[in-house]
Amino acid sequence: MENTYRLIISCPDRVGIVARVSQFIAEQSGWLLEANYHSDAENNWFFMRNEIRASSLSVNLETFRQNFSVIADEFDMEWELIDSSEKRKVVILASHASHCIADLLHRWHSNELHCDIPCVISNHENLRSMVEWHGIPFLYVPVTPENKPEAHRKIMDLTAEYEADTVVLARYMQIVPPEFCRRYQGRMINIHHSFLPSFIGANPYQKAYERGVKLIGATSHYVTEQLDEGPIIEQDVIRVNHRHSKDDLVRLGKDVEKAVLARALRNHLEDRVLVHGNKTVVFD
Amino acid sequence: MENTYRLIISCPDRVGIVARVSQFIAEQSGWLLEANYHSDAENNWFFMRNEIRASSLSVNLETFRQNFSVIADEFDMEWELIDSSEKRKVVILASHASHCIADLLHRWHSNELHCDIPCVISNHENLRSMVEWHGIPFLYVPVTPENKPEAHRKIMDLTAEYEADTVVLARYMQIVPPEFCRRYQGRMINIHHSFLPSFIGANPYQKAYERGVKLIGATSHYVTEQLDEGPIIEQDVIRVNHRHSKDDLVRLGKDVEKAVLARALRNHLEDRVLVHGNKTVVFD
Amino acid sequence: MENTYRLIISCPDRVGIVARVSQFIAEQSGWLLEANYHSDAENNWFFMRNEIRASSLSVNLETFRQNFSVIADEFDMEWELIDSSEKRKVVILASHASHCIADLLHRWHSNELHCDIPCVISNHENLRSMVEWHGIPFLYVPVTPENKPEAHRKIMDLTAEYEADTVVLARYMQIVPPEFCRRYQGRMINIHHSFLPSFIGANPYQKAYERGVKLIGATSHYVTEQLDEGPIIEQDVIRVNHRHSKDDLVRLGKDVEKAVLARALRNHLEDRVLVHGNKTVVFD
Amino acid sequence: MENTYRLIISCPDRVGIVARVSQFIAEQSGWLLEANYHSDAENNWFFMRNEIRASSLSVNLETFRQNFSVIADEFDMEWELIDSSEKRKVVILASHASHCIADLLHRWHSNELHCDIPCVISNHENLRSMVEWHGIPFLYVPVTPENKPEAHRKIMDLTAEYEADTVVLARYMQIVPPEFCRRYQGRMINIHHSFLPSFIGANPYQKAYERGVKLIGATSHYVTEQLDEGPIIEQDVIRVNHRHSKDDLVRLGKDVEKAVLARALRNHLEDRVLVHGNKTVVFD
Repeated sequence: MENTYRLIISCPDRVGIVARVSQFIAEQSGWLLEANYHSDAENNWFFMRNEIRASSLSVNLETFRQNFSVIADEFDMEWELIDSSEKRKVVILASHASHCIADLLHRWHSNELHCDIPCVISNHENLRSMVEWHGIPFLYVPVTPENKPEAHRKIMDLTAEYEADTVVLARYMQIVPPEFCRRYQGRMINIHHSFLPSFIGANPYQKAYERGVKLIGATSHYVTEQLDEGPIIEQDVIRVNHRHSKDDLVRLGKDVEKAVLARALRNHLEDRVLVHGNKTVVFD
Repeated sequence: MENTYRLIISCPDRVGIVARVSQFIAEQSGWLLEANYHSDAENNWFFMRNEIRASSLSVNLETFRQNFSVIADEFDMEWELIDSSEKRKVVILASHASHCIADLLHRWHSNELHCDIPCVISNHENLRSMVEWHGIPFLYVPVTPENKPEAHRKIMDLTAEYEADTVVLARYMQIVPPEFCRRYQGRMINIHHSFLPSFIGANPYQKAYERGVKLIGATSHYVTEQLDEGPIIEQDVIRVNHRHSKDDLVRLGKDVEKAVLARALRNHLEDRVLVHGNKTVVFD
Repeated sequence: MENTYRLIISCPDRVGIVARVSQFIAEQSGWLLEANYHSDAENNWFFMRNEIRASSLSVNLETFRQNFSVIADEFDMEWELIDSSEKRKVVILASHASHCIADLLHRWHSNELHCDIPCVISNHENLRSMVEWHGIPFLYVPVTPENKPEAHRKIMDLTAEYEADTVVLARYMQIVPPEFCRRYQGRMINIHHSFLPSFIGANPYQKAYERGVKLIGATSHYVTEQLDEGPIIEQDVIRVNHRHSKDDLVRLGKDVEKAVLARALRNHLEDRVLVHGNKTVVFD
Repeated sequence: MENTYRLIISCPDRVGIVARVSQFIAEQSGWLLEANYHSDAENNWFFMRNEIRASSLSVNLETFRQNFSVIADEFDMEWELIDSSEKRKVVILASHASHCIADLLHRWHSNELHCDIPCVISNHENLRSMVEWHGIPFLYVPVTPENKPEAHRKIMDLTAEYEADTVVLARYMQIVPPEFCRRYQGRMINIHHSFLPSFIGANPYQKAYERGVKLIGATSHYVTEQLDEGPIIEQDVIRVNHRHSKDDLVRLGKDVEKAVLARALRNHLEDRVLVHGNKTVVFD
C-alpha cells in the first residue's frame, strides 16, 4: 500500500473552499489519489477528505501542516493531516463471544486491517489462546457487579499504558463509564446487535424474535454517554423468517455483526468517517 | 393459473397431524402442488398449508369440507378451505400519495395480483383519473379533523357495500378506528414507511434522517388497534448515506414501500400468511 | 428543485486539475452544491462532476462556457456544461411488456424523473391507452422479420423528428441497427433481463432456470453495436429458489428490471454517468 | 442440539407420497420437528425432508430403516435415513488463501458447524500453524505442474485414509481430477469467486473488473467433471463501483466467498441440499 497523507477538513460552508484547498495541494505538487467532498445544505457545513500521494509532495509533513494552518484559520476549519504510514493503535475490548474478535484478528493477521493491536482486554479468560496465537498480549480484567468502577479504571489505565488511539468494543457487553466515553470520543467503536434505533439495550435478538421482524440487523457506532445513541457508522441486515428460533437469530446475527464492525473499523482507520453532531459522513 | 383448493390449518402440535391430513387428501385422490408445514416449538403450535389441484379431487369442495371437519374437530384445528378461483375483493384506501396505489393497480392490471378491486376510497381527489382509467370506481370521502368519526363510518359502510374481503391501506395516512380494525382483523394490511419497530408513528423519514441511519425501510403489517404494532408480514430496506437529504429518503423509500406492500398483499391473497398471536408464519 | 449548472469533465490525470477547475468556479463566485472526483489510476484518467447553484454565478452560462474553454484546452478535457433547467427529451421504445414503461411513466408523472417524454414508440398497440392517459403521443411502428430495416429507419426518423436527446429501450426486445446505436452512443439505454455477462442474448430467464442459479438479476447499460456488451450503468439481483418456476423468475425479475432501469435513467438524466472505454463512472 | 433422524427422499411424483410417509412416521410415534416438501412440476419429481425427534420414536434406527424400505420400494425412492448425532467427516483442501478456511475453522471451533474435520490438506505450508492451533492435523502435499497426477493420487489416498465423507475446496485453486470428482459426487463442495455462470475459470475478479460490473459475487457448488458447471448450492453478491480497484474486488469478494461457502456447507451437513440433474433443492 502506497504511503499517503490524508487531509481531513470540516468547516462552515462558503464559496471557494475547494478552490483554496486544492490550490494549496497543487502548489505543494500534491497528487490527489482520492478526493471527497460533502456539502450539508441543512447545516451549512462542509466536509472534505483528500488523499495525497506522499512521494509527490515537495514538502514534508510538518511544513505542509504549518503552511496549511493559515488556510485552516481563514476558513475556521477543524482539520487533521494524517500520515497513512503511521499505524493506529487499536485496543480491543472483548467478553466471551468470539465471532467479532476472531474476524477482526484474522483480517489484521492477513493484512486487511492497517493498524497495530497492542493488546486485547477481556473480562473472560476463554479467548486468551486465540489472541495469543496472533502474538497479541491478552489482558484479563474481571468485571463483577461489585468491582465495576475499579475494573473500568484499570481498563482505562491499560488503554493509556498501551497508547490506544482507538478502542473497539467487540461485543464487550458492559456499559462503559462516561469518563471513558469522553476520553475516546469519536474513537471508541461499538457493535450493537440490532438495527438501531430498534431494540436499544439488552437482549435485542429476544426482542426481535418476540416482535416477529422479518429482518435482523447490526449497527456500528461511536460510543457516547447515551447508551446505543452515538453516531452511526455502518448498519446492515439479514433476512429471517418464522422458521428461525431465537438461537437462529443469534447465530445469523453474528455474521452481520462481524461484517458491520469490520467495515466500520476499516473506514475509521482510513479516516473516512467524519462526525458532525450526532451523525456521520462516511466517504467510502 | 390452475384452479386449486387451499387447505390452511393451525392447531396445537402433536404426533400424526401431517399423516392424518395428507392421508385424508390422498383418499380424495388430491394431488399436492405445494405443501408447507411449520412446527413452532416454543408455543407448541402447528401450521400447515396444502395447495391441491382442484381437478384431481374425486369430491367437490363442499363434500371435502364436510368430510374434513371430522378431522378438524379431532385435532382442535382452526382451518379454512379456499377455492383459488374465487377472487378476493380488495378495497384500497388511499390518500394523495400515488406510488403504492399506482404499483398495485399496474400489478392488478397486468394480472399479477389475483383479486378484484371493487373500488378505491380516498380522502383526496387527485388519484381519481388514474383509478378510473383502470375501470375501478373511485369514491371520494373527505376526512377532516371535525368529521373523522362520520367519515370513517362512511368508509366502513362502503367497504361493507362493496363486500370487501380485504382492506389495503396504501399510504392512507389516517388512524383507523378500533371498530374498523376489529372488523377486518387479519384482513386489513397497512404499509408503514419505516423498518418497524423503529420510528413508530408520524414522520418516520424525518426521524430516520435525524438519527443518521444507514438503511431505511418499510414494513407491511396487519392493522390492529395498537398503532404500528400489528403482526408483521413483510419488511425490506434500502441503503442510504450522508449525501441523501430528507427528501431523498422519502423518494428512495417509496420504492421499498411499494415493493413490500405488493409482496405482502400477494402472499395474503394466496393464503400464505398465517397469524398466531402477534406474529406471522409466511409460507412463501 | 433548484436550478444548477453541471460541469462534467474527463481528461488525462495530472497534478492541479481540481485546483484549476475549482479556482475557476470560485472566481465566478459559484457555490458548489455537490462535487465528485475520480482518479482512475490504471488508465491515468480523471473524472469530475461539479454541480453549481445557478443563482450564485456572477456570469451567465454562455460566458462561463467561453471562459472555461481555455482551461479545457489546457488540460485536454472532454467536457460539458449543462443547465439543469433544460429538460432532456427522452423517447421510449417499448414492445408489449408493460412493467418498465408503466414504472417510468408513473415516475415521470409524479415528477420523480426530470425530463420530457415527447413520445413512446412501440411495435405493439397494447400500451397505447396507458401512454396516452399520460398525455404522451403513442406511435405504433410494427416490426416484422420482413420490414425490419424500414421499420428501424422509420423509428430513427421519429426520434429525430421528436428531437430525442436520449432513447430508452424499455424491454423493446428488438436488436437495434448499428447506425441507430452509433447515433445515440452513450445516450441509448437498455435494460437486459439478466445479471450480465451471464445469459447474454435471448431467453435469459429460461437459461437462469435451467442453470439453477440462486439469484436472478437485471442490467442497465448503454447500447453499443455489440449485443449486451455496452458499458454497464446499474445492476441488481433478487434471491430465488427451487420453488420458483420459470414463470416466477419472469415475474420476480420484472421488479428488478424496472428498478434498475429507473435508477440508471435517473443517473443518466442528472449527468452522473461518465463513460470511459467500455466502463462507467457513476457519481451517485 | 437435540438428536434427530433425517429422512431424505426423492422419487417420481404421484398422489399419496406425503400421506404414506407421514403415516409411517406417525406409526413409529415420530415427532416431526421440521418437514419440507417440493414437487417439481416440470420434471414430475418429488423431494421430501423429514426431521424427526429421535427420542420420540418407538423403534431404533435400524428397524426404522428396514420397515421403511418397503415403502421406498413401492414408490421407487432414492432415500437416506441419517442420524444427526453421527458427525460427518469433512476434509478441507486449501491453498495459500486463508479467508475461507479461517472462517470455517472458527465456525467449527465455536460449535456452529456440526462436523468433524479430521485433517486439512494443502499444497502450501503457510496455513499450518493456524490449522494446528485448532487441533487439526495439517497435511502438506505440494502440487506442481510435474507431479499433479501423483499429488492428487496422494490426496485421494489421504481423504480415504481419513475417511472423509465430504470434501471442501476452500479456495483450493487446482483442477481436481475426474476420478476424484466422481468418488465424491454430491459430496465435494467448491467455492468459486464469481457469480456463476459469469466469469467461469481463472481470474474472475480480473474479468469482472474489466467488464465493469456493479456487483460481484461468489458461488458454492458441487464439483463435477465440468469445471464450474456443477449444481449450485448457494450464491450471493456485493455491490461495487468505479472507485474499486481490482484489488478491492478481491478483498470485498473474500467476505462473500466465505459467507457463501459456510452457508452451503452448513446446509449440506444438515442434509438440506438434494441434487436432481444439475440443480439443487435447498430446504433452508
